[in-house]
Amino acid sequence: MPVALRETQVTVVGLGLMGGSLAAALRARRACRWVVGVGRRDETVSEALHAGLVDEGTCDLARGVRHADIVVLATPVRTIIQLIAEIGPLLRTGCLLTDLGSTKGAIVQAMQSLPAHVQPLGGHPMCGKETSGLSAADPLLYAGARYVLTPLARTHDDTLDVARQMVAAVGSEPLLLDAARHDRLVAAVSHLPYLAAIGLVSSAQDLLDETVWEVAASGFRDTTRLAACDETMMLDILLTNRADAVHMLSLLQAHMEKLSCLLEAGDEAGLQSMIGRAARQRGMVAS
Amino acid sequence: MPVALRETQVTVVGLGLMGGSLAAALRARRACRWVVGVGRRDETVSEALHAGLVDEGTCDLARGVRHADIVVLATPVRTIIQLIAEIGPLLRTGCLLTDLGSTKGAIVQAMQSLPAHVQPLGGHPMCGKETSGLSAADPLLYAGARYVLTPLARTHDDTLDVARQMVAAVGSEPLLLDAARHDRLVAAVSHLPYLAAIGLVSSAQDLLDETVWEVAASGFRDTTRLAACDETMMLDILLTNRADAVHMLSLLQAHMEKLSCLLEAGDEAGLQSMIGRAARQRGMVAS
Repeated sequence: MPVALRETQVTVVGLGLMGGSLAAALRARRACRWVVGVGRRDETVSEALHAGLVDEGTCDLARGVRHADIVVLATPVRTIIQLIAEIGPLLRTGCLLTDLGSTKGAIVQAMQSLPAHVQPLGGHPMCGKETSGLSAADPLLYAGARYVLTPLARTHDDTLDVARQMVAAVGSEPLLLDAARHDRLVAAVSHLPYLAAIGLVSSAQDLLDETVWEVAASGFRDTTRLAACDETMMLDILLTNRADAVHMLSLLQAHMEKLSCLLEAGDEAGLQSMIGRAARQRGMVAS
Repeated sequence: MPVALRETQVTVVGLGLMGGSLAAALRARRACRWVVGVGRRDETVSEALHAGLVDEGTCDLARGVRHADIVVLATPVRTIIQLIAEIGPLLRTGCLLTDLGSTKGAIVQAMQSLPAHVQPLGGHPMCGKETSGLSAADPLLYAGARYVLTPLARTHDDTLDVARQMVAAVGSEPLLLDAARHDRLVAAVSHLPYLAAIGLVSSAQDLLDETVWEVAASGFRDTTRLAACDETMMLDILLTNRADAVHMLSLLQAHMEKLSCLLEAGDEAGLQSMIGRAARQRGMVAS
């Protein structure tokens, strides 16, 4: 494989929000030689071509990846795992196979079984929107985001270097993590907030009073925005990170229980201490 | 009291985000004859005058309200309750005394004891920001928001009519609710989301891994934005709506427990059903 990103052909498999935006960013910045998009449906491929997100498009996986130097799997997580099991024989020697999946443990494990001529590397850009699909694609989606890379023992330094070039080309900043730590951290900042959003909407539904939606203001809309995420994508994420998600749920439950006790007791000093600690931490997270 | 808002003097007591924005909106649209701001500190009063948010400002409550046709209490909830206990003798006959407090039960109860010459009306505009203080004031803050009004048995129709004019003048839409129902609904769409945000930040802190903040993306920031709300304001809100907040916490706990069980069991159909129901509901809430 060429070691300069500019000389590579990049094939993005899965033309949704994340894949479409990555292709668009690479192409808009002329970061590589050729961008191929592989979609599931002819209409999506046509739309990607028409919108100028890719140089070439196809629904045929083998055809789309056969000349690729870099293949980026951008489908829901469990589809990524299936693709990893099939795609090896279709790839050129030295081809970098990476992905955009939101959990990394199961994906990296699947990557261990790839044939030796393939260079695997897990990836997870920490950006997104609650709207999905190619029509929401945006070449600036990756700008300023952290982009987690989870190398395997077999990942060469040259491979990692080309991946870093791609991350930089779309405007993101690479962060190397092992897959287990990645999954633990995203369970806290992504999967748990999603589950909380589902729980908050469900709790408001419990009141059986439609006026509740009329009084819902920006605070409720922000806090529950994740509940509108694509369900297939989220199911795949949760079901490939069950243990971490369950652990984070138990931590959240403990905090909610403590808040409930403090409120019932009218313990102002206790509430103030707990609220203050979280508020100070939240204040340090860039908004 | 004049029945046309245009002829009234409006005094806003408390020049923070909500009071400052209300004064600014009334003045910017020339909705009333004269806007007076009462602040706690000379600097705030000067800032309000300098920014053109009020026609006149003072730190002296008696002086600020003595000629007022409408007095709007825009302080934290427990300060509103204290002010209601003191302010009666300072007000003209027929003066409309209203407030912007986020809970209504305790405030409306305090209003019952006002002298007979005062016309009380609870109010709660469903808008805000996580930033507080006069410097964040914005004449457009109220635009498009629901503005809950909670009349008392003693509130005259004329009083309610002038209040409706004020709500319309700042761009909001009035919604009449009794105080108990208001408090139940806002516990679901405002106080519980706040508590969840505190719990989410606290849960991420539990990991004792500073990298967690680096991988926190827009989803985490949106879901936890409320945790940055002014602590004094939120403590007052929670402590004057304890029973409803505790009840909503129990509903959320039950949903989180259910999600945890479904995840542990790997029950995909059960997860899909629960997630789907919440996602459809969330989709119907304007974002």
